[in-house]
Amino acid sequence: MSGIVYLVGAGPGAPDLITLRAARLLAEADIVFYDALVHAEVVALAVRAEKIAVGKRCGRHSTVQRFINKRLVDAARAHRVVVRLKGGDPLLFGRAQEELDALAAAGVRCEIVPGISAAFSASAALGVSLTQRGVARSVVFATPRIGDGASAAGTHDWAASALSADTAALYMAGEHAREIAAQLIARGKPAATPVVVVTCASLPAQTTRAATLGELARNEPEPASGPTLLLVGEVYAAHVATTRIESTQRRANFGR
Amino acid sequence: MSGIVYLVGAGPGAPDLITLRAARLLAEADIVFYDALVHAEVVALAVRAEKIAVGKRCGRHSTVQRFINKRLVDAARAHRVVVRLKGGDPLLFGRAQEELDALAAAGVRCEIVPGISAAFSASAALGVSLTQRGVARSVVFATPRIGDGASAAGTHDWAASALSADTAALYMAGEHAREIAAQLIARGKPAATPVVVVTCASLPAQTTRAATLGELARNEPEPASGPTLLLVGEVYAAHVATTRIESTQRRANFGR
Repeated sequence: MSGIVYLVGAGPGAPDLITLRAARLLAEADIVFYDALVHAEVVALAVRAEKIAVGKRCGRHSTVQRFINKRLVDAARAHRVVVRLKGGDPLLFGRAQEELDALAAAGVRCEIVPGISAAFSASAALGVSLTQRGVARSVVFATPRIGDGASAAGTHDWAASALSADTAALYMAGEHAREIAAQLIARGKPAATPVVVVTCASLPAQTTRAATLGELARNEPEPASGPTLLLVGEVYAAHVATTRIESTQRRANFGR
Repeated sequence: MSGIVYLVGAGPGAPDLITLRAARLLAEADIVFYDALVHAEVVALAVRAEKIAVGKRCGRHSTVQRFINKRLVDAARAHRVVVRLKGGDPLLFGRAQEELDALAAAGVRCEIVPGISAAFSASAALGVSLTQRGVARSVVFATPRIGDGASAAGTHDWAASALSADTAALYMAGEHAREIAAQLIARGKPAATPVVVVTCASLPAQTTRAATLGELARNEPEPASGPTLLLVGEVYAAHVATTRIESTQRRANFGR
């Protein structure tokens, strides 16, 4: 038996934001390995499959990566259709390369099915385009690491990439939103730059919080209640201004 | 009658790479406006809808934007479910903001359904992650404009954003691949940087061409046969090396 491992994007959260191809493969799957953040209704589409949670959540490894790699290789030797479900798109911040390399080394055939990444569903919820003619012609997707200085790669500077692109979507930013805002300002981004903090994009629990970088840097962060994305850039100016007016009308204290 | 306009991402090309939500809305649609690059099988999912091609293709406006805006507003006054289908994700290089603003100004309710953008399906086809631990922690999506110096926005510098991110996905890059490579090198990107040119991502006509920036800058570009993406960065080093070895084995002349 030599099965195929399908590395499938489970999308941002809402179960109807997976692709038709993903749904078909889940229905055909003999065995499915899924991350903790994948919606139960997506996993349930694998009606005839053995379903195994491998429990990675936001970079915290509940099951070590090497063990997941081995299980995928073993599964491909015992089953025809193996699905590895990863939140969002598997090739953006999904640490997929380690699994791809392990499968290739073992001679296991692998195909990848892309998924909707959180920044796209967050943008859809806000109704604000990541790019806009005359305002933004580049978007960077980055994962800020706070406190580790230069990265292991030696050259990566998340703030530099966020500063040079017109719009920035910063993933896994929930815990450090305040420090991220402060660092961007310290590196020269204007404190008046609009920012929207989006948590649990596309799910019923979704929250959005509009501010400026300066406001975000001054305020205590609320505890992160789920995957959190910072969207930064002038494209959000109208959204932030509208939210500000609505808050004032509600006599709420903006920026808290 | 006050219908809803759904701005729906049609994905990168392959008809089964649209979302379940997009398929459901197409099935319910009374009227569909679609761009030229959307696959016929996706449009055909709108079984009961009037289907209208609005013919925008790669920035060339066959139907002027203002006319599209007016037709969407008119349609929402005559129909319950109006779908506007745009290739890829509507909020990345889709010029959606003009349509969103026109609908908002006319008081028409609008919802957005995200789609898979070409860089994700191109990455899936290559089997190479846009980000990789220790190699790439940021990706920029940009549309290089060659020959217009600074953009209308005054501040945008596509090359700067491509230089500061670890991986760059450059859209609408088919016509100017050679100049793009030359400009990146002139701005300090090493000529040995790996690059993959992907045309018609996810479709049967898909082609990929692996090279270095230096090779791309030296060679006459092949005529672009469809939407073309340049993927640039060290994450493609192994892919380029493998392709080089295969080419050598075939006694082909690499880089042509």
